[in-house]
Amino acid sequence: MASTTAKASPKGRKKIIVIGGGTGTFTVLTGLKKYPVDLTAIVAMSDSGGSTGMLRDELGVLPPGDVVRCLIALSRQDVLMRALMEYRFEGGKLKGHRFGNLLLSALEKTTGSFDTAVEKASDILRTNGRVIPSTLNNVHLMAKVGSRTIRGEEKIQNSILNGSLKRLWLEPSARANKKAIDAIKEADLIVLGPGNLYASIVPNLLASGMSEAIRKSKATKVFICNLMTKIEHTEGWSVADYTAAIERYLGGPVDIVVYNNKTPDESILKKYAREGDTLTPWDELPEGRESFGANLMSRHSHVTNKIGTPSRESSLVRHDAGKLASILMRIVETKKKRT
Amino acid sequence: MASTTAKASPKGRKKIIVIGGGTGTFTVLTGLKKYPVDLTAIVAMSDSGGSTGMLRDELGVLPPGDVVRCLIALSRQDVLMRALMEYRFEGGKLKGHRFGNLLLSALEKTTGSFDTAVEKASDILRTNGRVIPSTLNNVHLMAKVGSRTIRGEEKIQNSILNGSLKRLWLEPSARANKKAIDAIKEADLIVLGPGNLYASIVPNLLASGMSEAIRKSKATKVFICNLMTKIEHTEGWSVADYTAAIERYLGGPVDIVVYNNKTPDESILKKYAREGDTLTPWDELPEGRESFGANLMSRHSHVTNKIGTPSRESSLVRHDAGKLASILMRIVETKKKRT
Repeated sequence: MASTTAKASPKGRKKIIVIGGGTGTFTVLTGLKKYPVDLTAIVAMSDSGGSTGMLRDELGVLPPGDVVRCLIALSRQDVLMRALMEYRFEGGKLKGHRFGNLLLSALEKTTGSFDTAVEKASDILRTNGRVIPSTLNNVHLMAKVGSRTIRGEEKIQNSILNGSLKRLWLEPSARANKKAIDAIKEADLIVLGPGNLYASIVPNLLASGMSEAIRKSKATKVFICNLMTKIEHTEGWSVADYTAAIERYLGGPVDIVVYNNKTPDESILKKYAREGDTLTPWDELPEGRESFGANLMSRHSHVTNKIGTPSRESSLVRHDAGKLASILMRIVETKKKRT
Repeated sequence: MASTTAKASPKGRKKIIVIGGGTGTFTVLTGLKKYPVDLTAIVAMSDSGGSTGMLRDELGVLPPGDVVRCLIALSRQDVLMRALMEYRFEGGKLKGHRFGNLLLSALEKTTGSFDTAVEKASDILRTNGRVIPSTLNNVHLMAKVGSRTIRGEEKIQNSILNGSLKRLWLEPSARANKKAIDAIKEADLIVLGPGNLYASIVPNLLASGMSEAIRKSKATKVFICNLMTKIEHTEGWSVADYTAAIERYLGGPVDIVVYNNKTPDESILKKYAREGDTLTPWDELPEGRESFGANLMSRHSHVTNKIGTPSRESSLVRHDAGKLASILMRIVETKKKRT
């Protein structure tokens, strides 16, 4: 079983929990899985768009997308197997479906349990760590924006929330997965982010019992701040603003904030600026928290393809998996010496 | 690699090839995989119906269905993994698709090769033996029936051919897969059938070079005759008629014919009779061939479910995997002693 329990892990291995679900979590997991640590991802369960949204609507399954992404990040399988999981059908009625999502949904149908399906998919993908859905309730993310109520993560993602977001919640109300709570209790390090604030990170904290468990945990709590702002949601936010938002949903402080302090190429920033998104400024840092700034950007951001024009990947600002993992390992090892 | 080559197999293991693709082949493989033999299935590639037909039409892939069925038969994976592969989506746009078919098609798209996809699926399913597509050409089965030309295995399956079938062929013309030819050359035993004559067995023989290779092989050639006739295709056929048809497409004789000589329960025969299908009579056997008659029927044919009414499975006449395998092993072992 690749999905080893925390207790079964070799003694002395540090227990690290990564909370999120999107691309940022994928990056952190990809970096950390190379270290001899006991790794657990706790994943948001409110995705309602794309392939995942279609599967929820048509088959009545729980959302597979974010869980599958984390399983792929943790997989020790070969490149082909990971490419298979990421494969998106391109024609006919299957168009848009990611194969990994179909795998998890078919496993849920075959076993009758999302939880068992995730464990079986872990086995198939030989994951170096566990993935735990933040809740096993079938929920949708809800937002009160001004006087409007918006239902579904996808719609909320595409709505302008700046200044008028009153409240976020899950409907129906959801209990945190007991496995997630148990893992948090045992953790040495809890990593929040990076990732889309309202679509990837906060939904985890909205499951009843989750924030309380994190607050009470003896683990060092690290928030990795987003590289870029998102004009619809976090326009003009500084590192301090991001941290304050996370702490509001957490109901308490994080211990360490990790943020990028390197400006990418002008051409890349211009591309983002066309969408209204800007680099998160690091001139305002949260008071009274340890703050750690570094160049966190992926070198791939500067890669150009063979014909000299930026490839799709090169025009995106992304965290570097290796850099993040190295910083997180330093944090958890430092704690080791202290205790 | 589960997909070991014939040469890599332990010395002394008998090399058995099963040619077909449908339920009958599944049964033979299920029985034989429990013996220490080097097992290869050569599988028809002309299926055009159901989930397979949709995938061919919409994604332009080669037909996955029969190959997947054989991979499942040979799988050493647990019950859940096999249930997953057999799982058929029940709702929305995915309705009717078998998960195993989606796996093979996604692998074909990811690797760019059906052949590589089959090997990778073999690995995933940890097969005890190899599955080789009879051809890698993208073909459809064609039939000349009276003055009509019918295109596609599914349509041919549903057409009345009795007495008016003039010719069967593949379009475009197809070459036999070189791997299949090589395996046939090395074989000790070649098993044709049981299975639907024109949908599962004969399409294999229509690939150019296949029949010739079988005729020339030093292997003992066994034909396992169908339990039942099919009113549209083989109405009133005896064991001798079935054998003659196979030998016509093979262009030469088989060595041994294995046939059932036990009459199932009246109630089951009545159910078949409503569709016009009858038990294959064994009063006419092929001249000059070794013929081996036995009770080949699955005991499950007589099982009733908990509330005492015949379950779906119980009302079907099926070959017994264990009985067939035991007879085939006796044939191949007898040959061993002779040589």
